[in-house]
Order: sequence, then structure tokens, then C-alpha cells
Amino acid sequence: MSKVFVNIALSLDGYLAPDGMTMNNPQYKNWGAKWGALMSWLINQEYFRKNLQFGSGGETGPVNDLVRSTAERIGANIMGKRMFDQGEASWPDEAPFHTPVYVLTTEKREPWVRPGGTTFHFINDGPERALELAREAAGSRDVRIAGGADVIQQYLNLGAVDELEIALAPVFFGSGRRLFENLRDPMPQFRIDRVLAGPAATHLRYVRG
Amino acid sequence: MSKVFVNIALSLDGYLAPDGMTMNNPQYKNWGAKWGALMSWLINQEYFRKNLQFGSGGETGPVNDLVRSTAERIGANIMGKRMFDQGEASWPDEAPFHTPVYVLTTEKREPWVRPGGTTFHFINDGPERALELAREAAGSRDVRIAGGADVIQQYLNLGAVDELEIALAPVFFGSGRRLFENLRDPMPQFRIDRVLAGPAATHLRYVRG
Repeated sequence: MSKVFVNIALSLDGYLAPDGMTMNNPQYKNWGAKWGALMSWLINQEYFRKNLQFGSGGETGPVNDLVRSTAERIGANIMGKRMFDQGEASWPDEAPFHTPVYVLTTEKREPWVRPGGTTFHFINDGPERALELAREAAGSRDVRIAGGADVIQQYLNLGAVDELEIALAPVFFGSGRRLFENLRDPMPQFRIDRVLAGPAATHLRYVRG
Repeated sequence: MSKVFVNIALSLDGYLAPDGMTMNNPQYKNWGAKWGALMSWLINQEYFRKNLQFGSGGETGPVNDLVRSTAERIGANIMGKRMFDQGEASWPDEAPFHTPVYVLTTEKREPWVRPGGTTFHFINDGPERALELAREAAGSRDVRIAGGADVIQQYLNLGAVDELEIALAPVFFGSGRRLFENLRDPMPQFRIDRVLAGPAATHLRYVRG
């Protein structure tokens, strides 16, 4: 059966996103610089640059291979409404998912089809229903819980996350949206599966223990 | 000049200690089991077992080498009063430091000399004065900020921490004492120096960037 996984970048102090992150004002609370520091390991990778249409070139090597293999295993994405709203304002027309994306929201909206294979489906029936739909759509590929923090927390608390992949960057945010909050007993159980030591982030992979 | 460093174990959700940690009741809020999971990478290491007088034997290898080399570089320790109080109730007579230990406290107390080279000095004049004394005592060896969280935060905010060593364990506490809180701008700047991938913890070493 396909796996359900989380793959995110995290600041050393545990934040997924800096305080004040809004696409229309990167100067606000200096969030743009903080985000850039969090993502510095990624933005020069060849696969990422191509996918976001940043241009050709870029680094190749084990980190690029990791980025590519992560993208290629995804058959469907699940995300929260806040993440979708930020992306809607910033993704290129060819949104960088190339899979069905299930957006958890109270808003009713028809599916939004983008060029390049991304279709956003707006799900009003909760995280378990979204996961059912994502599993069906993914087939033999895997389901990625894309974010934000609250959505990842919901799936951790449902015990639905098989694999947790974290790019831990040596940056402090001081405030923002923490990834690991609101977890309930029994706590999720993971074991270390693999560590890839990159120069600008440590790529930690945990599997359900 | 000698370095100032932090070397601690951290849960994956960023806690240094679980909620309810008090030495006289390990069942309370299940803290004993959580602490054991956090420290499982350490408690079977030969050097640690010998130092805590847990008995002979134990694992040898790169993690044990790391534990030994960390202990051997320390010329003085600094800790908070809460950590001292917990240790006073649980350390063996031969307290496991074998250096001067500077305890940040408002309590006035004469130095407490233990067999095996550990002397606790009770410092009422704040973290900068404690660091001065620790540096003098350490000579060419290094000063370890032992904890707890609030003391480490104070030295991070003073910009005094040269090296940050974290044993990141794949365990969730859900609540407790977070390491990285109350940090002030300008945020501490670190870069990745080394990663040792152990089976039960990932040993991350950062140096001031």
C-alpha cells in the first residue's frame, strides 16, 4: 500500500514558517530573509529550480537526488487552506505539484485545474476523508501531507503518518508556526531510518516505529 | 582561547525535559519513561556507565568515543539551580563532573566539595560573572553550559555560545521544557559543523557562523 509521508524544512528552533509570513510583504518582520535561510539548501538544487521555473542549471548531487526522488514518489498532496492561499498568490501557472492536491477547507469551491497536471480539490469533510481521496488518487504512489503545521499535527494525531522527513536547517526564527505542537497521547512513535548530512541542512528521515 | 559549548539531548519536538520531571516520582506524568527514551542512546555507552557508576561493560564505538571526548574537553560546567537540585537528589557521591561547577542561583551557599574532583560553586552575580569564573577555572579546556533550558537561553542571548551540540532523539514529549524559547534578536547564528548518525539519536554539532 502507498505510504503517507511528511516532508518539510524546519528551523533549528522548530518552526515551519516564520512569524508574519505573507506573500505580499516579504519585509514584514523580516520573514522573507528567514524563509530564504530555511530554504537555502533547496533553492539552488537543479530539480527544484526546474520545477519552480526558476531557470536551468543548479546543483546536482545527493541533495538534488533526494529532492527528485521525493517529488517522484508523490501521487497526491494534502494541504491546509492557509498554505493553499499563500501558494495561489505565488505559484507559477503550472503549479509545482503535478498531482491532485486535496485542500482542507470550509470553503466550497469547484476543482481548480492548472496546466501541468495539478488539480486542486477543496474538501469540506475533514482530514480522514481527504486522505481517502488522496490514497485513491495516488494509486501505487505515496501521499504527501504538504502542510501547514496544523494539518501535519492533525495527521500525526490520527496516527496516519508513516514517514516523517525533515530538512533541519541551522537557522533560528525565534517565533512563527511551530511544527510539533498540540500532539496528543499516545504520542506518535518513530525511529531513525536515514540521515543525509548536507552542507546547509541535515536531512532526517524517520519511519513509524 | 577555550570554547563555550552546549551539549544536550533533545526530543524531536524540541524539549530538553519532559513535563513533571521530579526525581522523587518517576511515574508522575510518565516522565521517567520519556526521559529514558530521550537518553536511550547514552545509557548503554561504556564511558557513561563508568562515569555514573552504573557498572562495567557497555557499548564502545563512535557514540562512546563522542561521549568520552566531550567529557574530556570540559574544564568547568555552568548550570541552573533547578538542574542542580535534581542532581543533588540523584547523583552518586562522586558527582559525574570532575570539574568546578558554577551554579546560577539566588541562594547563598558555601562551595560544596564532592569526592572525585567536583566542586559546586554557588554564584549570585549573574551569568556573565559565572562565565568569567568558569573560564578562569577551565584554563585551556572548555566551558560547558550544562542546562537547563533557561540557562542555555541566557547564554545564547548573550552571544556567548561558540558550539551547540545536540543529540536529537526520535521521541515526542508533547510538553515539558523547550530548549529554544525566549531567544531575542539578533538571533544566534550557527552553521553545521558535523553530523554523526547514531542508531538511537542523531548527533548534530553546530558552530557559531
